Amino acid sequence: MMYNAKVILLSLMVLLTSTAFQQPTPGVVPEYTADAQLKFPEHYRQWVYLTTGFDMSYNPAMQMADHHMFDNVFVNPEAYKTFVETGTWPDKTMLVLEGRGAEGKGSINQKGNYQSTETMGVEVHVKDEARFPGKWAFFAFDDAKPATMIPTTASCYSCHADHAAVDTTFVQFYPTLLPIAKVKGTFSAAYRKEIAASAQK
Amino acid sequence: MMYNAKVILLSLMVLLTSTAFQQPTPGVVPEYTADAQLKFPEHYRQWVYLTTGFDMSYNPAMQMADHHMFDNVFVNPEAYKTFVETGTWPDKTMLVLEGRGAEGKGSINQKGNYQSTETMGVEVHVKDEARFPGKWAFFAFDDAKPATMIPTTASCYSCHADHAAVDTTFVQFYPTLLPIAKVKGTFSAAYRKEIAASAQK
Repeated sequence: MMYNAKVILLSLMVLLTSTAFQQPTPGVVPEYTADAQLKFPEHYRQWVYLTTGFDMSYNPAMQMADHHMFDNVFVNPEAYKTFVETGTWPDKTMLVLEGRGAEGKGSINQKGNYQSTETMGVEVHVKDEARFPGKWAFFAFDDAKPATMIPTTASCYSCHADHAAVDTTFVQFYPTLLPIAKVKGTFSAAYRKEIAASAQK
Repeated sequence: MMYNAKVILLSLMVLLTSTAFQQPTPGVVPEYTADAQLKFPEHYRQWVYLTTGFDMSYNPAMQMADHHMFDNVFVNPEAYKTFVETGTWPDKTMLVLEGRGAEGKGSINQKGNYQSTETMGVEVHVKDEARFPGKWAFFAFDDAKPATMIPTTASCYSCHADHAAVDTTFVQFYPTLLPIAKVKGTFSAAYRKEIAASAQK
């Protein structure tokens, strides 16, 4: 019966159409130029916020005098969702570190510091397993133009490898993710050693 | 022709089904208990991040000794989108202020401060025009239980009304929104006066 065939065909169309629209919207993935530069992740301020540091430094002798600085960390929503489920990062994770100027007194604020409209560089840590031999790479942006990968000889790679709590990322400074990694048992060997050493002090 | 009627009916179903799936997911709106308490906005950490303050205070004499504190501000994504388009907040806006402890030395950090896993209260500023005579209301949460509205006689209402840059909110401390409000011309009369006064100094 021709009649039933058409009805079945249309029913299949209904099914396919509705399934297509149930797919999640395509996620954020790192995009590169033809010469392997990373494109600036322009919507990162609408990604999931992880934390903010104030005047953080690995160097105790670092002097900033009257100058203060905030750094805000964001991650693409798909990677955040996977971290919450698994305690570690999926392929195509992008972590963004935004440096931002600090103001002191201003408007009704009399003490402490608030963030200024001035950004002071954006650094991106990308997990792209097929592209980077060490799975992850760093890129530093001065503006919204594409950026060249920081060479793997730079100290950021060895420091992250030697000290970061989860998969070369500093989850020990991300307050909502640290308890998840602890429960999921995804701490790096280096970080387990650091915890054990500080417990003996 | 019965046959065509069925085809038309099924085509309509395809259209309706696909339209339904094209609708955006329902947005965040403030939810209340039967006795008018505000329910805790449990997913606020996945909303849009606005800024972080460090040890901010309206009181110059405020002493915190060795104790430091961060406060992080988030807004529901629909309200953020409207602010970017219009320079002000729509009905059902929810701004969340999360207080968070500050750590100093720890792991590889030698200077400055990072955020701890300890939250120190969550305050919510809600715009709900039909519900609150002054359009906005404040609620303070100690935990994830519903919270009672802070009475309008509290100083937060008068301070926000007298000093906030846009629609009783402190957009002067939100670095990505301040330039938008300036361009859209949505500064409050009080904030215009403050800018004029500080320009004359």
